[in-house]
Amino acid sequence: MKKYTSVHDVADLNQLVQEAQHLKANPYKYKTLGENKTLGLIFLNPSLRTRLSTQKAGQNLGMNVIVMNLDKEGWALETQEGAIMNGTTVEHIKEAAAVMGQYCDIIGIRSFPKLQNRDEDYNEELLNQFIQYTKKPIVSLESATRHPLQSLADLLTIKENAVAGKRPKVVLSWAPHIKPIPQCVANSFAEWMGQADVELVITHPEGYELAEEFTKNATVTMDQQEALQGADFVYVKNWSSYTEYGKVLTDGEGWMLTNEKLQATNNAKVMHCLPVRRNVELSDEILDGPNSLVLEQANNRTYAAQAVLKRMLEAM
Amino acid sequence: MKKYTSVHDVADLNQLVQEAQHLKANPYKYKTLGENKTLGLIFLNPSLRTRLSTQKAGQNLGMNVIVMNLDKEGWALETQEGAIMNGTTVEHIKEAAAVMGQYCDIIGIRSFPKLQNRDEDYNEELLNQFIQYTKKPIVSLESATRHPLQSLADLLTIKENAVAGKRPKVVLSWAPHIKPIPQCVANSFAEWMGQADVELVITHPEGYELAEEFTKNATVTMDQQEALQGADFVYVKNWSSYTEYGKVLTDGEGWMLTNEKLQATNNAKVMHCLPVRRNVELSDEILDGPNSLVLEQANNRTYAAQAVLKRMLEAM
Amino acid sequence: MKKYTSVHDVADLNQLVQEAQHLKANPYKYKTLGENKTLGLIFLNPSLRTRLSTQKAGQNLGMNVIVMNLDKEGWALETQEGAIMNGTTVEHIKEAAAVMGQYCDIIGIRSFPKLQNRDEDYNEELLNQFIQYTKKPIVSLESATRHPLQSLADLLTIKENAVAGKRPKVVLSWAPHIKPIPQCVANSFAEWMGQADVELVITHPEGYELAEEFTKNATVTMDQQEALQGADFVYVKNWSSYTEYGKVLTDGEGWMLTNEKLQATNNAKVMHCLPVRRNVELSDEILDGPNSLVLEQANNRTYAAQAVLKRMLEAM
Repeated sequence: MKKYTSVHDVADLNQLVQEAQHLKANPYKYKTLGENKTLGLIFLNPSLRTRLSTQKAGQNLGMNVIVMNLDKEGWALETQEGAIMNGTTVEHIKEAAAVMGQYCDIIGIRSFPKLQNRDEDYNEELLNQFIQYTKKPIVSLESATRHPLQSLADLLTIKENAVAGKRPKVVLSWAPHIKPIPQCVANSFAEWMGQADVELVITHPEGYELAEEFTKNATVTMDQQEALQGADFVYVKNWSSYTEYGKVLTDGEGWMLTNEKLQATNNAKVMHCLPVRRNVELSDEILDGPNSLVLEQANNRTYAAQAVLKRMLEAM
Repeated sequence: MKKYTSVHDVADLNQLVQEAQHLKANPYKYKTLGENKTLGLIFLNPSLRTRLSTQKAGQNLGMNVIVMNLDKEGWALETQEGAIMNGTTVEHIKEAAAVMGQYCDIIGIRSFPKLQNRDEDYNEELLNQFIQYTKKPIVSLESATRHPLQSLADLLTIKENAVAGKRPKVVLSWAPHIKPIPQCVANSFAEWMGQADVELVITHPEGYELAEEFTKNATVTMDQQEALQGADFVYVKNWSSYTEYGKVLTDGEGWMLTNEKLQATNNAKVMHCLPVRRNVELSDEILDGPNSLVLEQANNRTYAAQAVLKRMLEAM
Repeated sequence: MKKYTSVHDVADLNQLVQEAQHLKANPYKYKTLGENKTLGLIFLNPSLRTRLSTQKAGQNLGMNVIVMNLDKEGWALETQEGAIMNGTTVEHIKEAAAVMGQYCDIIGIRSFPKLQNRDEDYNEELLNQFIQYTKKPIVSLESATRHPLQSLADLLTIKENAVAGKRPKVVLSWAPHIKPIPQCVANSFAEWMGQADVELVITHPEGYELAEEFTKNATVTMDQQEALQGADFVYVKNWSSYTEYGKVLTDGEGWMLTNEKLQATNNAKVMHCLPVRRNVELSDEILDGPNSLVLEQANNRTYAAQAVLKRMLEAM
């Protein structure tokens, strides 16, 4: 594996999930694989789960891990070709990415969208330039449009909690939030579920349609109650509008998942990528109750990252 | 050992000090003990000695150490039960602590008091929630009311420098400062000395009485000269008022320790936890002179942390 | 080797360059040398290459590496002897450096000049106090007046790219910039080239003369075209004025290196320490063209640092 930025970089989803399960059972079995290899984790935005789980995944494989909060420890990067750099950017990504590639064997990069210009965000300019200029395997630690390590952990969590022999109904249910949030996690989850052996239903208020490329295999409805009928898993997540890009169109009253709403489901397990705003996105009663899988998901982040890193190390 | 937050978590003080001494002589003897174990060090406030010494202690034991400056690299945590999180906090400590607990085998946490609401600070809300939600052994890296790794290093330093066969007189002497400082180090030192085989005298200006729970075995006087008579060790430290909570009540003129004042002592060794404001809390002549133990104390921080971590690793 | 702050700390330049070449070919050969040794990297200013390459160099030698962004994770240091610390500085360098020395076996320190008071900067107060108080081997990660790890990497890069049997002509060519930049890299490069087996020519606009101590073995001219004649290497770098200290005296129009200017050279290789402001200091056409060595230089930083650390470890 040379890059891991979306589901399209994965040849066989089931095999990768199995790899993650195998590593969860044997986290230190491949400690010599990463010997003398350096994993560079570059953050242009804050991170808790991704930072800790990916750092741990690298260490489990015996790698040296270097964490760099480029926004705080470094300086602003230029991404425009041909720019006359007489402003605030101190270094062009051409050089910055290339030198990081020289020091590291695998690079993870996190960069959020600005939510101002849709084309710019959806072009994944920064991520693609990193891929182009580092010349090393790149792992997305969440980019402008996707969060594939989260999605792999989510799929692993669903597999672990699904009832044997039944194709699960999985509902991605939009939730309220107080500020504009990227579409990455929702895009990525839809894209992964679309390739997995599940029935995917997406529900959201009007104006919150995700880009079509991510929802091809999904049923979309604006009727949350209808969507929840018989669901085995409900993935709760806020995102801002894709069509009116980056905008918050509604306060989402009535969209927060509660135990009452869960009654329509098949005693569904509830998922969220975290961080979650309690009693805005999800109610205390669900997060503190027996149906929540949010901590399982977070725990599985380590093994999702480890599976990806192992594949990359093996391909060197 | 499952948690290390105060002297009350230590079954036998002498044994723990001996363990630290043993590790100081043999720092790398137990490098396999921490193999495949992750130590997470979470800072909500700046740190120099604690950060470096605890990181080193973990590495000496063969642990992987992950440092996270949560205030800078992460986001604001909610601690109120039932909060509707539509404000500035991004994640509830319930989730944040739980996921950190999943990634780490031992967690160290530093969180200073806000010095605004005494009950809130002395309830140790954040520390206690961490203990509750991480479900992993927790080491306090300084909390709202105590600094137990410092106190263990202090006790080790006193033991190393005490005259054999004599029960030392130890004086905790309040010092001036330009701003409000927590009571943690003073509380903790008093609490530890109260359990050690020393004579403890505390001296401070009026209004600076520490909470009674920490000073049970101490003689308290507002006459610094009287306190210093025949002292073997003088521990210098500023703290803000406990009774008029968080307030600076006096500029403390005349309270700074000098060589002249030391003449009343038994050629006392002088201690301070650092950082120290020179010529405000302590005079240059003492810090640069032969009686200062401040660097010894700092050095012993590594072995204090290592002794605690070793106990926790052994109990797994 | 006990300290590495300038070319004067190097007994034999050629041997050190050969050591770096040897390590480049065998980066992991000495992994046991650094076992149980801690490298502390202290940054008072941002860093990308220096941080990553030195961290990697330490890890290649088997060291534990602790990175501390003292300006962000710690607090402001006092450097004045006898200061009454009732202002913004929280700890004196006497204590801070001494305790870091206790926790680390080798310390790297980066501290930029303030460019306000020339004597203060050129006295290298902070670096010298670190050397005095840590009592451990010190590596400069760029100080107020020099950047010796960069210079060693530069010399290695020149050696790798020089035509056998010909003493190369090396030109240090001032470049425009939008703000005041330290003289460190230029000073250091001039000082190193002055000791190496090269012909050194320095060219800059009027008023940008470097301090004489660094340029003793160089020809200096304000005619860039004349300087470039027959050059084998052109090292491009901006620096602010030394004589009118810290000032930008000209916008430097016409001083940016271009392919057209390169025609006067012996198909010269072009060097820059990075970060570089494209199309201000250096044109895209050169940075993206076949004559650029800037990435080679950055890559060689790892082995320059590793050679220095290896010498220090061997001397313990």
